[in-house]
Amino acid sequence: NERPISRAKIARITEMSPTSVGRIVSELIATGVVKETSLSSSGVGRKAVYLDIDAKSILNIGVYLNKDFCNLGIIDFDGNILAFRNYNINVKNFTPDEVINKIGEYINDLKTQEGINTSNIVGVGMGFPGIVDYKKGVIVLSAQLGWKNVSVADKIYKMTGLKTTIDNSLKLHALAETMYGSAVGSNITSFVNIGAGVGSALVINGNIYRGSNNIAGEVGHITVNPNGMFCECGKRGCLQTYMAEGALIKEVSKFREINSIEDIFIANRNKENWALEILDTAATYIAMTVNNVLAMYNPDTIILNGDLIDEHEEMKKLIELKLENSCWEPFRGTFKLVYSMLKRNGVLIGAAAF
Amino acid sequence: NERPISRAKIARITEMSPTSVGRIVSELIATGVVKETSLSSSGVGRKAVYLDIDAKSILNIGVYLNKDFCNLGIIDFDGNILAFRNYNINVKNFTPDEVINKIGEYINDLKTQEGINTSNIVGVGMGFPGIVDYKKGVIVLSAQLGWKNVSVADKIYKMTGLKTTIDNSLKLHALAETMYGSAVGSNITSFVNIGAGVGSALVINGNIYRGSNNIAGEVGHITVNPNGMFCECGKRGCLQTYMAEGALIKEVSKFREINSIEDIFIANRNKENWALEILDTAATYIAMTVNNVLAMYNPDTIILNGDLIDEHEEMKKLIELKLENSCWEPFRGTFKLVYSMLKRNGVLIGAAAF
Repeated sequence: NERPISRAKIARITEMSPTSVGRIVSELIATGVVKETSLSSSGVGRKAVYLDIDAKSILNIGVYLNKDFCNLGIIDFDGNILAFRNYNINVKNFTPDEVINKIGEYINDLKTQEGINTSNIVGVGMGFPGIVDYKKGVIVLSAQLGWKNVSVADKIYKMTGLKTTIDNSLKLHALAETMYGSAVGSNITSFVNIGAGVGSALVINGNIYRGSNNIAGEVGHITVNPNGMFCECGKRGCLQTYMAEGALIKEVSKFREINSIEDIFIANRNKENWALEILDTAATYIAMTVNNVLAMYNPDTIILNGDLIDEHEEMKKLIELKLENSCWEPFRGTFKLVYSMLKRNGVLIGAAAF
Repeated sequence: NERPISRAKIARITEMSPTSVGRIVSELIATGVVKETSLSSSGVGRKAVYLDIDAKSILNIGVYLNKDFCNLGIIDFDGNILAFRNYNINVKNFTPDEVINKIGEYINDLKTQEGINTSNIVGVGMGFPGIVDYKKGVIVLSAQLGWKNVSVADKIYKMTGLKTTIDNSLKLHALAETMYGSAVGSNITSFVNIGAGVGSALVINGNIYRGSNNIAGEVGHITVNPNGMFCECGKRGCLQTYMAEGALIKEVSKFREINSIEDIFIANRNKENWALEILDTAATYIAMTVNNVLAMYNPDTIILNGDLIDEHEEMKKLIELKLENSCWEPFRGTFKLVYSMLKRNGVLIGAAAF
């Protein structure tokens, strides 16, 4: 947390003797994890010697599996991606074990990457959409993947020899943004994702808030209308039935054939009125989601993420305008609204960091 | 947390020498805060000597101010109310300073209570509805009291000579339930209150979750309909516009003159159909609120509180039935639904404990 740092300051913070600090630092330098750097001193004296982590001495493999792709990367201690692989894979065409075997092979292949000291790889972190029992390394339920009670971490460990952790992809992405992305310095961060579903994650002082079963943050499944339409979760009137990507495409499909969210933005740029109308409605519900996250969590930072938002300045403007009008008085000025800095790489990087 | 406890166990837990523990314990016994108790040992040997806090050696005054009453009590270390006073006071008929002066006088009067060693009183804790800056001792905004930016703690300290803390009443009530009430042993507790407004509080491992400005938990103000009716907060379509006590009474007033929520329960007992209809709707929205709290916080325990619920078994049954039908699959079996054990005294006791 305090890099670079002098030996003297370490002694002060840890209340250890300078001799002990010197000895331990020497050992760490010998292992290659710590290195000396020099900073120009502000005065006229000689340059001070500082210590820093050698970011490339501690590498992890990050994995992000979603319904139609698997991203892998070798990530260093500073969250840099040193190597990256993308595999297109339609997960529902395979059994969970087949998919896990493929990922194990991808990881083993990545371990042979040239130009990187892969002996510094200490573990694997994996992010999945859905409910994950991170302590047991089991995916409890993933609607997106169609998986239920699938043990993952043990199998990957057996195939790769690398200690493996898994977690929910939104939670890992949120963690990454607080460590390396758009929420560095934030104490209470809410990450809100608008995609195939709508979800959120909360990071409190650098720790993922999990609730008692790692299911906290399901803002897309708060009920807004007890008599509303059914959601894919089996409940009525969930917030995400009004605004997830599929819901928007389905609305438009009533009168126009479109294949993706991008088609709506193209129509909007072509000044087709219906397109602005539906984007405006989506922005209303996204602002409402932000307000609801504020009301429940009272974060200092909210990160908005998702294909609907990331590359679309017109959407960001719409959302900010709606929020300006609808934000409850006590919350005004209490938070920063930002956008994902790490974008699709956030899950990878968060998984490796975790 | 571990009472009663032996000197030997204290030494083990603290990793201090038995001699040091013995010396410190003797000092604490001399001050009267700690006392010796004896427990029968399970074997045939002599009785073991245990140590306990003398609960009556540490007293606090708890205060709960609401729009039409002020409750005060002397509370011991175990959360017992040793003396209790209720004053009816229509807060909006007075200036904030007049009300604070009255409370200061009530406290000074309570300090002369006979039969209690009032020299053991160490402080005052106060609970208020609304948004409270507990660090500064200031009420930021209370719609119920009609107060805005009112400094309280300093004034009470000056009047009484007792160190004074203030906080939001729901948060204090939630804390009390986890310490002495229906959520003892819970790690993540959500407290949900249905009253003049609808609010919630979250206690994580014994600590009140505050968010960055102590405004977390405003479940009554999550927006459920962006085109809904206006709420007293100035936003449209807040959850509480469908279910707070005032909303229910207003609904009924369209066709029947009633004065309170109790009139609805009386009508229901007299088998008037409209009464069951409106209670059923209220139960639907209360269950929806519970589901939304589950989705966001994933607690192990949810405490329901409020006049609409506390004394009405028929309402509890309705809510439990609705919840049984509407609870999302991943949350089934993950939480206990309980009711407030401390009821109206919860705020007092929590304020004193805080």
